[in-house]
Parts: sequence; C-alpha cells; structure tokens
Amino acid sequence: MVSKSQIKLIKSLSQKKFRNLHQLFIVEGIKGINEFLNSKFELVSIYTTGENFDLKIGQPEIIDERDLKKISFLKTPQKALAVFRIPEYKKPNLKGLILALDRVRDPGNLGTIIRLCDWFGIEDLICSEDTVDCYNPKVVQASMGSLTRLNIQYLELEQFLILQGLPVIGTMLDGENIYTAQLPESGIIVMGNEANGISEKIQKTLAKKLNIPQFGKVQKTESLNVATAAAIVLSQFKQAASIEK
Amino acid sequence: MVSKSQIKLIKSLSQKKFRNLHQLFIVEGIKGINEFLNSKFELVSIYTTGENFDLKIGQPEIIDERDLKKISFLKTPQKALAVFRIPEYKKPNLKGLILALDRVRDPGNLGTIIRLCDWFGIEDLICSEDTVDCYNPKVVQASMGSLTRLNIQYLELEQFLILQGLPVIGTMLDGENIYTAQLPESGIIVMGNEANGISEKIQKTLAKKLNIPQFGKVQKTESLNVATAAAIVLSQFKQAASIEK
Repeated sequence: MVSKSQIKLIKSLSQKKFRNLHQLFIVEGIKGINEFLNSKFELVSIYTTGENFDLKIGQPEIIDERDLKKISFLKTPQKALAVFRIPEYKKPNLKGLILALDRVRDPGNLGTIIRLCDWFGIEDLICSEDTVDCYNPKVVQASMGSLTRLNIQYLELEQFLILQGLPVIGTMLDGENIYTAQLPESGIIVMGNEANGISEKIQKTLAKKLNIPQFGKVQKTESLNVATAAAIVLSQFKQAASIEK
Repeated sequence: MVSKSQIKLIKSLSQKKFRNLHQLFIVEGIKGINEFLNSKFELVSIYTTGENFDLKIGQPEIIDERDLKKISFLKTPQKALAVFRIPEYKKPNLKGLILALDRVRDPGNLGTIIRLCDWFGIEDLICSEDTVDCYNPKVVQASMGSLTRLNIQYLELEQFLILQGLPVIGTMLDGENIYTAQLPESGIIVMGNEANGISEKIQKTLAKKLNIPQFGKVQKTESLNVATAAAIVLSQFKQAASIEK
C-alpha cells in the first residue's frame, strides 16, 4: 500500500517547484525505470504491480493497480513508477559542441531534443531558466532514457553565453547557408522558442548565424519545428566534424 | 445555429471511414482555415464565432461558442471550424524525390513530416494504407497548412515500389553512412514505423540502404524518432542536390 503522505509527495512532483524543493522526480514504466537504474541516478523508491525488478539494494514496493493509478501521471499506468533524485550538475565540457535552448516550452520537443543530443554525442545541454523543466514527467517520458546520459543545466543563458569563451552559433533567417558554411568543431549552438525563435538579447551574443534554406516553390512564412531544426543542425555539424577527421 | 444533422456529420469526421465515405474533413482555427481557403481545396461549410472571414463565395455561418464547442475536436475551440472536400490525387511527379511512409502511426509525426516535405520542396508523399490518415484532425492541426501544398496518396506500398521505375532508398542499421554515400537526385525515400522501422516486405524493394551514424560514446539500442530521422535524411538529400548544382 502507498501511504497518503507518499501519494501527496509523488503527486506534488508534477510541479517544478516541488521537484526543486525535494530534488526528486518520477520515472514510469519498466523500460524507462531500468534505464535509470542502470545509470548514475540515485533511486529513492519504486512501486510496481508485479515482480518486475531485481534491485541490488532494497526491495521494490508491490502495490495494486488501483494504488498505481493514484500516483501515476499517465492515462494508462505502466506497471511501475519510481522516484529518483535529481543529480548534481557537472561543469560542461567546453571542448566539444554544446547545445543551448532559449525558451523551448513544449515537453515533447525537449524530449526529442534530448534524444537527438544523445544520438549525436552532445553531452552538455544548457537551458534558459524559462525552458521547460527536463524532469517534467512528459519530458522524462519523451526522452526515453537519453536523459540518463546527458548533463543538463538551467541557468541565466545570456550571461553564460557572454562569459564563456566559445563561439555562439544560432539559426536565423539572415544567416549563412548551413549546407555551404564552414562549421566549427566546438561551440555553443542555440535553438530558440517554438513561436518566436531566438530572443533579441540572445541574438546579440551570436558569433555565427546559420540558415537552413527552404527548397519549396513558394516562399512560406512558417518555420520548421524546433526539434526537426535541431536534428538538421546537429546532423550538419557532426557530418562536418566526421568528414574532416 | 448548427442543426443536429450537421453536428452529427461533423462529429463523424473524426473517423476515417466517415471521412472517406463523405470525402470531407475538418480544419480548425482562423490561421489554418485561411491557408486552406487560399489553396485549391474546396470549402464546403464554415462556422465561426465572429466576423473572421471575408469569403469570395457564400457566407460563413455565425454560431455561438457553445455550438462551436459541440462540433470542435479541440479542448479549447479556436473561434472557427470549416469543412473541406478531400481533393483528388494527382499522379506523382517521378522526376524528383518522393517520400514514402511505411506504417507511420502517430498523427504528430505525420504532421511534422508533412511540414518537412513542404520545407524541402518534396511535392509527393506516398503512404502505405496502414499509415495514419493525413485528414485526421490531429494531423491537419500538426501540419499547419503544409498539407495544402502536398500531393498525398494512400496505396498498397509494396506494389507501388515494385512497379514504378525509381530507385527505392531506405534507412537501415546495416546501410551505408548517409554522410559519405552518393545520394541520387531522384528516387523514393522510405521511412518506417515508429517502433519497428521498415517492414520486411518493403525492405526487399530497397535499391539503396543508408544509415544515420550514431555519435554517442555508448552503443544504444534506441533509434531516432521517425520525424527527426526524416528531417536528417531529407536535409542530406537536398544538400547533395544543392551542392552539385
């Protein structure tokens, strides 16, 4: 059985302020939980409807489906829910490529971008303070374990970009064609907000502006989704780096 | 006022079988409806809570918010809803690049892929019969007007790929590195299902297999999301074509 105080604590973790207060977050589903168990993340508690886990330390708490439904954030609870501790940030590695997000708001987009970073070997993701929280249950779900392999930090982005020494690169309509531009092997790539792109104050920090050219017949006003744009940009940078070597 | 029979018809259009029966589909929101009004799509009826449209032919039906809520598929109805006729397919243009989808199931992914085709000037999208319907309200919403600029056809994919004359290209784990491979200027690029990739019978039709290499330290089993993979593949093909010219 899950006690009332446990239910209250877990439910509170849907909100960023309580995740920050307790330094805890939720992972649901056996596959996802196993990825976190096999990482450096520290397990706090685990609730499951069957003998789904063989833990090295401690025991999972077996609960019934009704109790799982009480604590789950999913419409269809996925047999297990675990509480993990939010890890401490490491200092970003300034030698390679770093991705920075300026006010990305959609949890699905952040989850997709986290998977992309993992795929392309980007270890450090820097987020502006108003970017959606990476421990939001929807982001955890969408990032599918890639979250365990990234070092993600929330900070005052403008200040960070000004103070560190790497070139800051962003996609802008008036930028150089990304397919023909010289792409540096290290630097900070900034992706902007879904509706408004990169904010003005962050634009001022850009050392290089790139543009993904449009190939359609008609000039359209719409832009690419931020996650697909990130896919194209990261792919171009990694291609450039892999061909040079 | 919206009559009971109109409500019944519109509500039925959430289901593919009724969309196919009536050859009608729904667009919601002023921005989206305007994109369809400015395209070749034929308007059948339009319901709006204010004077939002200046139509060349006929008049929009002014309804109150309660009625809009009855016919809308959105949690928060967007001031207007229109019914359009599903267009007839044109024969695909076999001279350029064509994208084919093999069992893509998620409406959000299909919407993103439609926007990508539009961005990269891909005019023909071929879908297997079990790919999610492009007139599904969620797909219409996610494709943001790009749907008006594409020629989309649902058909028996294997047969189509065998009978037409173009090389069929797919991404597979054992494929050639997409960053160094020679990419043809015309052909049919196949993207597969979210969980299972390209199905076995479609794999047999592939003339060229490509692979998006993974750059992370650890070899992980997870794949890229189909929409982000499509973004990278289309970007590579367009880059190759634009540099050669």
